[in-house]
Amino acid sequence: MSNDNASPTPGWLKIVGLGPGDLEYLTLSAMEALGEATDLVGYGPYVERLPIREGQERHVSDNRVEVKRAREALDLAVSGRNVAVVSGGDPGIFAMAAALFEAIEAGEPVYKSLDIEVIPGISAIQAASARLGAIIGGDFAVISLSDNLKPWSVVATRLEAAAAADFVIALYNPASKARPDRIRDAFALLNRVKPPETLIIFARAIGRPDERVTITTLGEADVSVVDMATLVFIASTQTRVIERDLEGKPNWVYTRRSVPIEAVEP
Amino acid sequence: MSNDNASPTPGWLKIVGLGPGDLEYLTLSAMEALGEATDLVGYGPYVERLPIREGQERHVSDNRVEVKRAREALDLAVSGRNVAVVSGGDPGIFAMAAALFEAIEAGEPVYKSLDIEVIPGISAIQAASARLGAIIGGDFAVISLSDNLKPWSVVATRLEAAAAADFVIALYNPASKARPDRIRDAFALLNRVKPPETLIIFARAIGRPDERVTITTLGEADVSVVDMATLVFIASTQTRVIERDLEGKPNWVYTRRSVPIEAVEP
Repeated sequence: MSNDNASPTPGWLKIVGLGPGDLEYLTLSAMEALGEATDLVGYGPYVERLPIREGQERHVSDNRVEVKRAREALDLAVSGRNVAVVSGGDPGIFAMAAALFEAIEAGEPVYKSLDIEVIPGISAIQAASARLGAIIGGDFAVISLSDNLKPWSVVATRLEAAAAADFVIALYNPASKARPDRIRDAFALLNRVKPPETLIIFARAIGRPDERVTITTLGEADVSVVDMATLVFIASTQTRVIERDLEGKPNWVYTRRSVPIEAVEP
Repeated sequence: MSNDNASPTPGWLKIVGLGPGDLEYLTLSAMEALGEATDLVGYGPYVERLPIREGQERHVSDNRVEVKRAREALDLAVSGRNVAVVSGGDPGIFAMAAALFEAIEAGEPVYKSLDIEVIPGISAIQAASARLGAIIGGDFAVISLSDNLKPWSVVATRLEAAAAADFVIALYNPASKARPDRIRDAFALLNRVKPPETLIIFARAIGRPDERVTITTLGEADVSVVDMATLVFIASTQTRVIERDLEGKPNWVYTRRSVPIEAVEP
């Protein structure tokens, strides 16, 4: 038997969540994968957070090419490399994992035979909730406001349904240069469904040096401060602020676990 | 000035997420807190997962006494101890963090002056989504089916709203000895709102040796296998199974990032 057409032994592909901001929330599993990989693939700023390892190749790319980046990573694994695709937050929450499986489904049949592991990470909603106290202490809904991939009417239907049913709501990707007004559209919708005293939190750049938390209300919120690094929370009727009146110690925000029946009745 | 009434210098309290199952998803921040604490407080099985440290006190309790356990931890911190309250998964997601802030709000004024840090962890929804592929790749809603703390009508309203708006839905606490029928009630409701071919996933004990994943449909799901260790996913119209037909390699389940307008229209 000739070896001319022999395929290389495939490597593996792990898609690794780095968590938000610096690496304080990196998991043991993520560290192990990053240590064993022959190749790192990812958006530049994520790859640059990681220490250089001798012999480990880096493949950095732009933020807007998820499926292309996924295909590159899959081809590297097929060729025998051990590949860590790095992702901010949790790759499973509005990050690289869905793009990777889209690339597998649409791509070469050999991709389906690869060993693939998704290693979850701490997502922005968790880091922000922890910094505030426990805002997602009750039922919650997570919505991307980006309308790159779904029409605005889908976003609006979901936002209205979640608001009317008194979920705590977290909005990812609330603003962009291409569509700066969608956060205004979202707040106009919320103002029709929720009372003006509804608590609103803007949690910006949690875990980074420029972190900033704003606690306000639907009636008073100034959405002009919202940018792509901001996670927006719309509280439920059971969310409360614990006032501390202590210099340098922020107030806490948490959602009670119990819910009275009136909360979701019209 | 007499020292008789001097208060001790207070310690700190960190509420630490251990992630699911074994400790592969423990974060660097969690490890540091567990290493520095003078006292560990928590539900027995969580505390028992951690290595014994000389001089570190352990305070284990039953699962059903969250607020009592929180108060004990707060009193230890007030008395000068450095306390790690340990929690499975993420303390912020249907775990100890909300109970802690309830205890602070209802308790001694001195509690508000304590240094408290919530350290998030990987929650069951993330570990299960990663094991499957990327089922929470789109917008998603997270609901506790437990009606210990909220009336069933609140659960039903939220479940119906999330199902009608085509969220991927994760159900925590889907069954208990006290109320075995609530998962049946939930599926009866879902059958009125969603078509029978809707994908359903039962993800049981992810990260533990007895882990078991069942991929089925709303029309064919057998809810008798659902227990308190099971996380239940109701897929959206954009969730897909990638068939692999490979011995020992499970199929993948992921949700497409893009959504056509028909998905949420009646």
